[in-house]
Amino acid sequence: MNYQGKRWRTIWRNADDTIGVIDQRLLPHQFQTLALRTMEECAEAIRNMTVRGAPLIGATAAYGICLAIRDDSSEKSIHTALKTLMFTRPTAVNLLWALNQMLAAVSALPSEKRLERAWQRAAEICDEDVETNEAIGRHGQAIFREILAKKPDGSRLNVLTHCNAGWLACVDWGTALAPIFMAHDAGLPVHVWVDETRPRNQGASLTAWELKQHGVPHTVVVDNAGGHLMQHGLVDLVIVGTDRTTAQGDVCNKIGTYLKALAARDNGVPFYVALPSSTIDWTLRDGLAEIPIEERNAAEVTHLRGKTADGALVEIQVTPDGSPASNYGFDVTPARLVTALITEKGVCAASEPALKKLFGR
Amino acid sequence: MNYQGKRWRTIWRNADDTIGVIDQRLLPHQFQTLALRTMEECAEAIRNMTVRGAPLIGATAAYGICLAIRDDSSEKSIHTALKTLMFTRPTAVNLLWALNQMLAAVSALPSEKRLERAWQRAAEICDEDVETNEAIGRHGQAIFREILAKKPDGSRLNVLTHCNAGWLACVDWGTALAPIFMAHDAGLPVHVWVDETRPRNQGASLTAWELKQHGVPHTVVVDNAGGHLMQHGLVDLVIVGTDRTTAQGDVCNKIGTYLKALAARDNGVPFYVALPSSTIDWTLRDGLAEIPIEERNAAEVTHLRGKTADGALVEIQVTPDGSPASNYGFDVTPARLVTALITEKGVCAASEPALKKLFGR
Repeated sequence: MNYQGKRWRTIWRNADDTIGVIDQRLLPHQFQTLALRTMEECAEAIRNMTVRGAPLIGATAAYGICLAIRDDSSEKSIHTALKTLMFTRPTAVNLLWALNQMLAAVSALPSEKRLERAWQRAAEICDEDVETNEAIGRHGQAIFREILAKKPDGSRLNVLTHCNAGWLACVDWGTALAPIFMAHDAGLPVHVWVDETRPRNQGASLTAWELKQHGVPHTVVVDNAGGHLMQHGLVDLVIVGTDRTTAQGDVCNKIGTYLKALAARDNGVPFYVALPSSTIDWTLRDGLAEIPIEERNAAEVTHLRGKTADGALVEIQVTPDGSPASNYGFDVTPARLVTALITEKGVCAASEPALKKLFGR
Repeated sequence: MNYQGKRWRTIWRNADDTIGVIDQRLLPHQFQTLALRTMEECAEAIRNMTVRGAPLIGATAAYGICLAIRDDSSEKSIHTALKTLMFTRPTAVNLLWALNQMLAAVSALPSEKRLERAWQRAAEICDEDVETNEAIGRHGQAIFREILAKKPDGSRLNVLTHCNAGWLACVDWGTALAPIFMAHDAGLPVHVWVDETRPRNQGASLTAWELKQHGVPHTVVVDNAGGHLMQHGLVDLVIVGTDRTTAQGDVCNKIGTYLKALAARDNGVPFYVALPSSTIDWTLRDGLAEIPIEERNAAEVTHLRGKTADGALVEIQVTPDGSPASNYGFDVTPARLVTALITEKGVCAASEPALKKLFGR
């Protein structure tokens, strides 16, 4: 995607065989790239959230395996790397998947052939992520066009999104944001309401930054505003990503997603979820009963980072000393509130029969 | 209410005939009182939000009239004060009401009798506010007891509230928080989920501070969390205040209230609105169509104030440079989502017949 007019991915191999990434902890206030030089530096970049987003975490771990093999291509070295990378983040479905892919690719090879194959497989993992997101973008864009076609000529298409399911979370394009970027590139008059997404503000800091850099018209709103916007006809559709989708189409996504889905239903606004099929957990059905919700550090609620007038990045406390806080990371939107799922294979209803049919299961 | 074990109101007359107030701009990080010495200082305290909350603004304006009369009891002086105080804040229904009360009390009197009557009437306005809120608190507490009685012995009563309808917004007790304080004082095991309430964070900064000072168990959550809490049975009731209530029971309150009402309905959680009857606008019926929603400064969304680790109060920017933001201050919760209205006259359904019956209209 675009940053200052140049095309970027979120991760790349440098000529000196280090791994280039964007330090996402400094966004939206500073854009800095880093070169990860060792497997351990890749692991640390995942741990400290230099990189985040399930697909990008997977890609970073894959390149971590490459760097481990570059330094020592023995089986012992590879297994040390696997164990180190596996425990960098707790949720990590994509992380395990990417590590398994790397292991499958290199483990049967003689040690001197492993490095070349590892570089190749890591690059494929990145390219596959881009292709998946491009497909989601195409399917989503078709929906955008249908909805816009029903509006009076000259109308803009108002899309509301929550959190960041953009290219910074992936290798390129993003999931929920892919149709937005593609529609904008195709000349559709898209305008995006960006939910701030407390407590970590991924909307205000990352989604707004992506849209700004790509030139997509957008407006940041607090998470409280979406209902009011929908009541007044200012939202044509909602599109969000998902961290985990059950076999019956329940959607576990960033905390607050459920509230927007309720408001969409109450106001007749379609509510879409964009997902690579890798987020579908075919072993679960009832998301509300079966998906455990991670409770994160309360400091994410009580403290906030931002830029002062003189450009320094500082952290401030917003709650009274001694007032406890709680911080549930996700909520579950029941399938009944989801208009459709947009996957790389196409669009389907949020139901078990529709999902099974689309994926031939 | 309590601050450091001492009983406070939000406004009082000092022995030297200045007006004492709490500088609410510094809460929750610093507690400082100020003495307002002139009518103009009262006006400025309202303008710059040293004091806020409709009832407290009214009381401050009333004392502003006292100070104007103290300095010059002529009709011209009183009218200058009225004009100055009237335009300190835009919404201001209570402000106009309080000014009219003061004018009615003093205008027929000879100028030498005006000051004594003004002091008396301003004190009455404050006392009446306290009585109204005490009555709301009693009626609300009865509801709390009913709901708690249906829970297993030893359960705590989990109450969710949005924004600050506490004593800091009034002279004492508050509206939505009055039943909470009274229930706690009466020994009920109340626990409060405090919505942060972006963008101005009145929940995280003022409601949490009030509850902390009064010793009421509470937990701050982001505005996104309420739906998840309700889905998991962690909320027994929601109670909020209102800035304006229509004759058919539609409720205009802080942005985001509507989303909590939707979640309450979806999960069978009762949703109460506490209000002094002065907030009922009998001239309006359909709140969504008829109540204009104030759009406030976008800087409230893009920038936040808080305390750094070394105790300084600083402002930070959380959005990217150049990303626009919008800031609707309120939303309307339709009467169909409101379980009941809790007023100083008693509890009634959110409907025109029920409201008319309760208020004998």
